[in-house]
Amino acid sequence: MNLREYIRDIPDFPQKGIIFRDITPLLRNPEAFKKAIDDLCEKLQNLDFDLIVAPEARGFIFGGAISYKLKKGFVPVRKPGKLPFNIISEKYSLEYGTAELQMHADAIEKGQKAIIFDDVLATGGTAKALKNLVEKSGGEVVAMVFLIELTYLNPRDFLQGEEIISLIKL
Amino acid sequence: MNLREYIRDIPDFPQKGIIFRDITPLLRNPEAFKKAIDDLCEKLQNLDFDLIVAPEARGFIFGGAISYKLKKGFVPVRKPGKLPFNIISEKYSLEYGTAELQMHADAIEKGQKAIIFDDVLATGGTAKALKNLVEKSGGEVVAMVFLIELTYLNPRDFLQGEEIISLIKL
Repeated sequence: MNLREYIRDIPDFPQKGIIFRDITPLLRNPEAFKKAIDDLCEKLQNLDFDLIVAPEARGFIFGGAISYKLKKGFVPVRKPGKLPFNIISEKYSLEYGTAELQMHADAIEKGQKAIIFDDVLATGGTAKALKNLVEKSGGEVVAMVFLIELTYLNPRDFLQGEEIISLIKL
Repeated sequence: MNLREYIRDIPDFPQKGIIFRDITPLLRNPEAFKKAIDDLCEKLQNLDFDLIVAPEARGFIFGGAISYKLKKGFVPVRKPGKLPFNIISEKYSLEYGTAELQMHADAIEKGQKAIIFDDVLATGGTAKALKNLVEKSGGEVVAMVFLIELTYLNPRDFLQGEEIISLIKL
């Protein structure tokens, strides 16, 4: 089973010049979704960590399943105004435009080890913002994990020094 | 382990008079999160269905994990403008204000059986909108499943005739 066949390329979404990688065909196929989670978990099995930190919304789908399978805690990172308790915040640039992400201030205990998960690694801006949130909380990022890596955007240059794990390289 | 202890009540969020049920303490605790997923899956084990349909964003965390464990497909339902392919849309009222949800038009095949999942069952407006989306696609809703049911909002009156399954009743 080649997971690449379950990713649909949508040109010019959300804006002209961007190829959007649509993972909904992969999600709706039980075998493809299960294989994606199993393959990701296999890559993480030798890593020592406590929590998975993932941004809304697509990061939640995989983040929840991986947390469940590996018996880790899950920390949701959200767009402004969504989290109800005390928050910490991080502004950053992304492939198209700018954004801000928030996390609960009590989500990570000092010294806890976290993995960052997102469905797509593009420029690396979101991943870096997630790392900053973890470190502001006193946590440590052990690895950054992605379903899809857009190698042509050179995210590994931007994220130099990070442990980066991805399943599908485009 | 009493899962209720991992749900934090936040008064007056997102607006005055609403008690927001914050599930982030449950998510960040590996045992509590695992128990929630396992208990939900146990309640679904005798149901015949193909897909889990869940709305962003918190519905994705549990929806992804349950889909993985039960080897079902996952269909994300999103706010307007997020899905890149052909969509179908549903407008509805919710506990505070109105909203619109969208699903890919090819997400569900004619005759497929779906379970609707959301983290919180409040008035039932979102659940009904999800059901309408499934039926517009030619699918069938087998059950509506929730982590938390706010019984004081009487959602079962609004959703009369539906199979409703919830783990924590408040």
